[in-house]
Amino acid sequence: MANALDSFFGAMSDPTRRAVIERLARGPASVSELHAPHAMALPTFMRHLKVLEDTGIVRSIKKGRVRTCHIDPEPLIAVQGWLAWQKEIWENRLGRMDALATSQEHFDD
Amino acid sequence: MANALDSFFGAMSDPTRRAVIERLARGPASVSELHAPHAMALPTFMRHLKVLEDTGIVRSIKKGRVRTCHIDPEPLIAVQGWLAWQKEIWENRLGRMDALATSQEHFDD
Repeated sequence: MANALDSFFGAMSDPTRRAVIERLARGPASVSELHAPHAMALPTFMRHLKVLEDTGIVRSIKKGRVRTCHIDPEPLIAVQGWLAWQKEIWENRLGRMDALATSQEHFDD
Repeated sequence: MANALDSFFGAMSDPTRRAVIERLARGPASVSELHAPHAMALPTFMRHLKVLEDTGIVRSIKKGRVRTCHIDPEPLIAVQGWLAWQKEIWENRLGRMDALATSQEHFDD
């Protein structure tokens, strides 16, 4: 799990790679379609795609000369789980502090 | 927003930094308390803390010789928003595909 989070967060720390995810969330696309809006050489873009494929969030299928990419949501769901877990612990803590403050008020009465 | 996501995802891509967030979700802690479970030199650990402070997710207050750190949840909420947005687009798309498949079945009847 540690490695999956490392690589997912690392992959998402780049705006080009997030743009690819935003595009693929709308549906599968070929490598050329994904590359088109980005002002960078194809080999540079392919390195970004490889980072995304290595995390497992992007998968691709080659048919003839066209490689089509799509999202695999598994890593996204795992990461949302981690973030939600942190938020829950943090909110529970705030909830306990509120409860403590309220009971303290009653004690002061 | 692009920069905030860059730096947040970059910060979260390291297991030491995620461990600090997991600890601070449970409540504020001094730098020494945060450092204790990590088998690394203090200056190395301080660099990790600085990355977290630079993203805004960790804030610290120095009182006398003790620096106490706490979480600021703003960046976490922004990132959860981005992930949830991608998931929503993706799920809506799957929903439309289901609807299309269903209407196609009716058409075939």
